[in-house]
Amino acid sequence: MKYTPASTVEMLSDAHVAVVGLGLMGGSLAGALRGHCRAVTGIDHRPETIETAQQMGLVDYGTTNLADGVAEADIVVLATPVRVILQQLTMIGPLVPPGCLVMDLGSTKAEVTAAMGRLPAHVQPLGGHPMCGKEISGIETADPALYQGCTFILSPLRHTSEEALALGKALVMTVGASPLVLQPARQDFLAATLSHLPYLLACALVATADTLTSPDPAAWKIVAGGFRDTSRVAGSDVTMMMDILLTNRKAVLKALSVYQGHLQELFHLVESGDEEKMQAALRRIRCIRREMFP
Amino acid sequence: MKYTPASTVEMLSDAHVAVVGLGLMGGSLAGALRGHCRAVTGIDHRPETIETAQQMGLVDYGTTNLADGVAEADIVVLATPVRVILQQLTMIGPLVPPGCLVMDLGSTKAEVTAAMGRLPAHVQPLGGHPMCGKEISGIETADPALYQGCTFILSPLRHTSEEALALGKALVMTVGASPLVLQPARQDFLAATLSHLPYLLACALVATADTLTSPDPAAWKIVAGGFRDTSRVAGSDVTMMMDILLTNRKAVLKALSVYQGHLQELFHLVESGDEEKMQAALRRIRCIRREMFP
Repeated sequence: MKYTPASTVEMLSDAHVAVVGLGLMGGSLAGALRGHCRAVTGIDHRPETIETAQQMGLVDYGTTNLADGVAEADIVVLATPVRVILQQLTMIGPLVPPGCLVMDLGSTKAEVTAAMGRLPAHVQPLGGHPMCGKEISGIETADPALYQGCTFILSPLRHTSEEALALGKALVMTVGASPLVLQPARQDFLAATLSHLPYLLACALVATADTLTSPDPAAWKIVAGGFRDTSRVAGSDVTMMMDILLTNRKAVLKALSVYQGHLQELFHLVESGDEEKMQAALRRIRCIRREMFP
Repeated sequence: MKYTPASTVEMLSDAHVAVVGLGLMGGSLAGALRGHCRAVTGIDHRPETIETAQQMGLVDYGTTNLADGVAEADIVVLATPVRVILQQLTMIGPLVPPGCLVMDLGSTKAEVTAAMGRLPAHVQPLGGHPMCGKEISGIETADPALYQGCTFILSPLRHTSEEALALGKALVMTVGASPLVLQPARQDFLAATLSHLPYLLACALVATADTLTSPDPAAWKIVAGGFRDTSRVAGSDVTMMMDILLTNRKAVLKALSVYQGHLQELFHLVESGDEEKMQAALRRIRCIRREMFP
């Protein structure tokens, strides 16, 4: 059988989806799916979060009980921090019906897909990483439009069925994103440089401003758009980022050390005052940036 | 005599303003001033730039001749890269009428105000640094709303008259910005960390992505908002940035070396996997970021 867009959208519209963890990512996904599938159940350990999700119209049903919430699900999406996902994957197998698609939204995929590989055979596993997100968090920040236009990485396992992958892709396209199938190691390597490294740079920039300029009250009056944008992701949720860094440590440290090398080169260029070399290096970097974001 | 907002706005509305250099900053300033003063003359070495500024309605008059353009000016604003400003300050004194206010928009102030100190006594000098700007450049990008809401640093010299400073403040407020008087050394120190350092970090990030991820075509599909914002200022005009770095080298290198220290601490934290210390450091940084941008 071939899974066409039409047949998988039909599969999705019949599906009961359970979203575990109603923060920015889970709440936004639930809201984007609601109305496009049979029912959306939101699961969170805090009753007030479920209440807010219901008031915001993001879910059809809500529960604090994981077993109850996933018992009749055709698709379960784990939208918690990566190390919570790893814990939930150890217990969710016996709780879901046969054939259930279990996905996640974690930023690192090697450890998550390894844990998915230990799920019982009646479960269809599919790693996921949507390349969107913000430096804000919590159900209050959820926005069904969050996934519009973003790339959504999918990492199927060797035994993930063609049907399950097609259903995952239909879910991704339904929330407005574009699926991109990548192997976990390749995704983790790319995400280390393109997503996890910027977080550490932003953190070090904020720490530097705190050391050097915070003592001067004028600093807060003159801080402008360049600093604001460059430091933005330093406001990201710490639990989420800790889990990402600790489950992608090797690739993150590699990216960070390459970065330190490039920064040291820039230090020497500015120190030397060699205008020709400096201009060549900065022009080359500007061209690369413009190619990235035309 | 006391210079009230009302009397200085009246002074400004009678003034002929000459803006030298019609790029993003100069073109935007001209457009924001036009209609609020007697006339705005735009001066640029490229005739096509002047033509565009006129088509965009940013200036009343335009000329490629500096002497002609400033001959009847009550206020001259130098809106060129810092080292071009330094050159123009060596020649502009004899060209302007007695009592003329000569300002600039350069990002570093120590060398500029030193050069302003060598202007003839009939000129009123006033260093300026608006804390706005973008990674785009050229007259086509000019926007009269650019200065709205930004802080505009003013560095008067010892012999700048109270009247000239009041006129400078009126100009700043007329374009929608808030004046903040700072000594040149203090402004250069703060700008090194809050504005010039973010540029170097963004450049090193782009160089790192080019080294590590550019060989993989999937990289450009997954590059997301975090990378885009953190690297944004790497697209800034290179001539402008070169001049800034070379005229604020000592403060920039100091900020960069403090930054490298903080980054190395983060490297060790991730490497050690000491969760308690890591969490404490990242939480503290997140709080500082949130205090900076509530």
